[in-house]
Amino acid sequence: MDKLIFILTFVGALLALLFAFAMSRKVLKFSEGTDLMKKISLAIRKGADAYLKRQYKIVLIFFGVMFVVLSVMAIFKLLTPYVPFAFVTGGFFSALSGFIGMKIATLANARTANACRDGLNKGLRIAFSAGSVMGFTVVGLGLLDISVWFFLLKFVFNLSPEGITGAMLTFGMGASSMALFARVGGGIFTKAADVGADLVGKVEAGIPEDDPRNPAVIADNVGDNVGDVAGMGADLYESYVGSIISASALGVAAFHSINAMALPLLLAAVGVVCSIFGTFFVRTKEGATQKQLLSALSRGTNFSAIAIAIIALPLIYFILKDNWTIYFAILAGLVAGVLIGKATEYYTSDGFKPTQNLAATSETGTATIIIGGLSVGMLSTMMPIIIISICVLVAFFVSNGAANAAQGLYGIGLSAVGMLSTLGITLATDAYGPVADNAGGIAQMAGLEEDVRNRTDALDSLGNTTAATGKGFAIGSAALTALALMASYIDKINSIEGGAAKIADLSITNPTVLTGLFIGACLPFVFAAITMNSVGRAAQSVVKEVRRQFKEITGLMDGKAEADYASCVDLCTKASLREMILPTIIAVVVPVIVGLSIGPTGVVGMLAGATASGFLMAIFMSNSGGAWDNAKKYIESGVHGGKGSENHKSAVVGDTVGDPFKDTSGPAINILIKLLSMVSIVFAALVVNFSIL
Amino acid sequence: MDKLIFILTFVGALLALLFAFAMSRKVLKFSEGTDLMKKISLAIRKGADAYLKRQYKIVLIFFGVMFVVLSVMAIFKLLTPYVPFAFVTGGFFSALSGFIGMKIATLANARTANACRDGLNKGLRIAFSAGSVMGFTVVGLGLLDISVWFFLLKFVFNLSPEGITGAMLTFGMGASSMALFARVGGGIFTKAADVGADLVGKVEAGIPEDDPRNPAVIADNVGDNVGDVAGMGADLYESYVGSIISASALGVAAFHSINAMALPLLLAAVGVVCSIFGTFFVRTKEGATQKQLLSALSRGTNFSAIAIAIIALPLIYFILKDNWTIYFAILAGLVAGVLIGKATEYYTSDGFKPTQNLAATSETGTATIIIGGLSVGMLSTMMPIIIISICVLVAFFVSNGAANAAQGLYGIGLSAVGMLSTLGITLATDAYGPVADNAGGIAQMAGLEEDVRNRTDALDSLGNTTAATGKGFAIGSAALTALALMASYIDKINSIEGGAAKIADLSITNPTVLTGLFIGACLPFVFAAITMNSVGRAAQSVVKEVRRQFKEITGLMDGKAEADYASCVDLCTKASLREMILPTIIAVVVPVIVGLSIGPTGVVGMLAGATASGFLMAIFMSNSGGAWDNAKKYIESGVHGGKGSENHKSAVVGDTVGDPFKDTSGPAINILIKLLSMVSIVFAALVVNFSIL
Repeated sequence: MDKLIFILTFVGALLALLFAFAMSRKVLKFSEGTDLMKKISLAIRKGADAYLKRQYKIVLIFFGVMFVVLSVMAIFKLLTPYVPFAFVTGGFFSALSGFIGMKIATLANARTANACRDGLNKGLRIAFSAGSVMGFTVVGLGLLDISVWFFLLKFVFNLSPEGITGAMLTFGMGASSMALFARVGGGIFTKAADVGADLVGKVEAGIPEDDPRNPAVIADNVGDNVGDVAGMGADLYESYVGSIISASALGVAAFHSINAMALPLLLAAVGVVCSIFGTFFVRTKEGATQKQLLSALSRGTNFSAIAIAIIALPLIYFILKDNWTIYFAILAGLVAGVLIGKATEYYTSDGFKPTQNLAATSETGTATIIIGGLSVGMLSTMMPIIIISICVLVAFFVSNGAANAAQGLYGIGLSAVGMLSTLGITLATDAYGPVADNAGGIAQMAGLEEDVRNRTDALDSLGNTTAATGKGFAIGSAALTALALMASYIDKINSIEGGAAKIADLSITNPTVLTGLFIGACLPFVFAAITMNSVGRAAQSVVKEVRRQFKEITGLMDGKAEADYASCVDLCTKASLREMILPTIIAVVVPVIVGLSIGPTGVVGMLAGATASGFLMAIFMSNSGGAWDNAKKYIESGVHGGKGSENHKSAVVGDTVGDPFKDTSGPAINILIKLLSMVSIVFAALVVNFSIL
Repeated sequence: MDKLIFILTFVGALLALLFAFAMSRKVLKFSEGTDLMKKISLAIRKGADAYLKRQYKIVLIFFGVMFVVLSVMAIFKLLTPYVPFAFVTGGFFSALSGFIGMKIATLANARTANACRDGLNKGLRIAFSAGSVMGFTVVGLGLLDISVWFFLLKFVFNLSPEGITGAMLTFGMGASSMALFARVGGGIFTKAADVGADLVGKVEAGIPEDDPRNPAVIADNVGDNVGDVAGMGADLYESYVGSIISASALGVAAFHSINAMALPLLLAAVGVVCSIFGTFFVRTKEGATQKQLLSALSRGTNFSAIAIAIIALPLIYFILKDNWTIYFAILAGLVAGVLIGKATEYYTSDGFKPTQNLAATSETGTATIIIGGLSVGMLSTMMPIIIISICVLVAFFVSNGAANAAQGLYGIGLSAVGMLSTLGITLATDAYGPVADNAGGIAQMAGLEEDVRNRTDALDSLGNTTAATGKGFAIGSAALTALALMASYIDKINSIEGGAAKIADLSITNPTVLTGLFIGACLPFVFAAITMNSVGRAAQSVVKEVRRQFKEITGLMDGKAEADYASCVDLCTKASLREMILPTIIAVVVPVIVGLSIGPTGVVGMLAGATASGFLMAIFMSNSGGAWDNAKKYIESGVHGGKGSENHKSAVVGDTVGDPFKDTSGPAINILIKLLSMVSIVFAALVVNFSIL
């Protein structure tokens, strides 16, 4: 069995990586188009590369310091010696996922634009293939990391199942830290450039979006790649790996068997195969409507989801025998992911009442559309909370949780794995969005024909809808994984000498649990505030630079002189890298401080509070932002006065407020809640030995 | 001892009511000024009376229905027979507190304006006396209700201490329901009128605030009274009573003695005396600066707080003997209230960096000041969370909680009582604000001299600062009281046959606790969304009516014809009463549904989640609103372009968004979190007998 697990997971990893490689070859075969298009694409690629290089330098310092800290702790027997290395590999693979995803995205943007000159279907295929490279790289590297570590721990160091999952849990912290850097840094970059470009270009100078005269236009396109692609890649790598290893650890705690440990790995490996088959269903005919485009993508994801749902049943029966009802936990996770995506779509798509009504509030001015957008976001938390609550209860009780709580918690962990099992393809449909967005920018800047631009617009607009679904999975799986990690944390404390006594009273009326809950619930608020402020500060510096260039570069507005794009890219890079440090440090330091002051029960309270309030804040901010964005687009389609009207101006303010909401603070909170658990687990022994309470 | 408790509490109640009566006599001795001032004041009074009458009619239906429901439950032995009656008296006294407060406020507004013609000190004295009437009516009626019920239950029905507190807990639900109606209805009224008057009057027609040509101007002033006065009165009545009876119940559970039950009552009675003495310290000299005015008010509250802190020590030693260290729990509550008020002031006063920096963000437009205000509010949750967490831990551990959890919980309950013990005077300084605000409006409308208006402005602006302190107490005590009520709920369930088994596992990893936590944490978000939407809808109807009057009434803008003020008042009344029903029903129905579906453990989770997230949301929304308001005033003082500049317009948008934040949704959440617990307690037996899980 042990070898089978290793082989199957390793094969799954290889399949995913091979498929990603094949897809990238396919993308690269196409032409980048005209010289101007090549030049623009190169500028974007260079900017993105430069950003990542400098980001990695800073991250390297962080990882170096943490490696030393963890090594010292290992020397003092507060950690096993594998932890510092596991931490580094997690970070490395997370970064690599983001890097490869961004690389292919910046190589595919001009090619997608050029392909749209030939037809819609060709454009869709290239953008989607680029998205697939990203999706399958993430799952491939995730499984590779897991299988290699499994091999080492099992066959080289001969650890028990408990030992294996214990060590593996810790590389999640490396992945999470890297993901937070990537999400926060990239999120600040992309929104600072976006807001800066819009405020001066669109509002003050009155030139259209993606106009080459705007000095921040390249920075804006670079931002799409470093934020929406590299950030998302690192983020979902971390979700994927985190959900698998936390479920494995809970499986070992529940059944003390290698089989229960293996199930999440095998599910993931099977999910890779289902996802690969799913990608072949994504194609559309020329002149396809928005609806047909969407159903082309949905066909792929639906096929994969149904396939895994069918295959999982015999797989689980084979592995867990009498406990096969855990199957329904996986099914609950899959269904919950889809439903949260649907709820997100309902609240943020202009095809439904909430966003249409939001657009109507622009009639009475800016204040009312702001109030309206905030309240849409807050209200939209209700359905996802109910869905995730039902999912948790179902997962727990079908897994025999009433009689054996450990098995129930394993069920909750597996539901997260179920939700993410088809990540290869769901991420492909998600990552395809920024590629299409960039293609649109290049088409505009390179002055391509009207109907090419229309095709890229159609692809781009579709990306907004698939992004909603992607967010459903990201947020839902984050909450479930965080709960699973919380359970793993408790197991971890119990396994440490003297830990059991310190964590005996987890009752919610215990004041340390309660105050932990309060502090944890506060963290997403503080985190959102800090990241929003960062975007504000960075955007202001971009605004000043763009204003300066408009004033000082003569002939810029007449198209006779070229803007200094590089200086805006440089500015965004510096600002975002400076601003990403504080949030990450908070996320790493707070669990340790809470643990050392109010003890392990306080930490559990903190994790529960952060998960609940983080889930709510992430949905609230993402959906408010999405609703404002689409309300603006809805007005641009000609209702309520259309483009250029006072109502439209109000909607643009809403959209600008929504930018850091949905693309910086909201997604970063998803990572925060998992990173808090990971850090808590790694520092568990320190806390047990030295906490005050 | 029994009789002593009754007598002292009853005497405390009488003292407070007598003092309130004396203060009202004093206020009424002054003249209302010119005929025009009398006429305006009468119009405001009539509007407010008409609103309350119609509000009470709707509330009466609700109370009637609930009385029948509770009676039926009592017949089926799911409640004791006192409960339906206790429920009604709680509601009645809560309403009466709001009514009397509003009555005196509407009688004092013109008198304050007129007194300001003679001098600042005279104006301050009248406005503060009116505030005192409100403050001492609230505490007087609260203690009266408590002492009369104590008398009945103890000496007429001969109940045990457990029986007494069990029955008394339930009149909290009546008070909370009434408070929620008053806060939500009043909050919607005041902000709909305010936003409506501003959007059309200030922004579209370009006439100043409180201009008599604006048809919504009377409605705006009525709103200050029905929202900020009547709403606040009912709200704090409920906080006061809720904190005392929940602490009493926890005292009985911890010590099984009448002494422990009596302590909160006696503390409250002593607090009344200290507060009365404190009011004599509030006076200032003519031409006092803002700082001197503030220190005049602070002298009063500080004296009362220090007096109660000193007297409480021997009192507790006399009553609890060896357990006298609980004294520090009370002290922790007092200090926490003050500190949260200071933190609120720091984040919302334009004397400090956060609001000054917020004003500066207006330089880059509306979007940045919105983002800035939201992030100030979110960030401002950090200090209060830390303060309340420390307060909870201190209260628990100094009360011997480590050895005996019940005593620790009693300590937490007492810290809330400590925080609210000087409510008489803190509420007086808080309720004084709307009176000064109204006086300013009347001075403007009646065309009084420039320097009179300057004096009312000075008083009004001071009200913003005292309101911040008042909010600190309201939010802090709400969180502590909610925690105490949660503990009371658990005791209640344990006391019901079959209840103990259903609530045995309160561990935070129990999935029913967890899902309850998720649902509870979501409620404040949903609640905020609904109430904000309500304000938006109501404001839109006011906007339309004001626009209609400007168009149809010829000569209105030249001052030749009079506006139809009554129609705006009527519109606000109808809209706010319609909109207040849904939120209250949600607050009453959700705990029952949660209880019946996932059982008592789910309810406890829900209460903890709602308390944590409600505390955060209330602070976030109140402080964002306060910061926007003061950033606007700061710009009006001449910085960043001053009044009328583009920056000022952006700040006005921020202020308008902040209006429902700080005066409708934020304060309503405070009541929500307590009402949820009260409802849960009343329906405990139903849940134990019929819940699914």
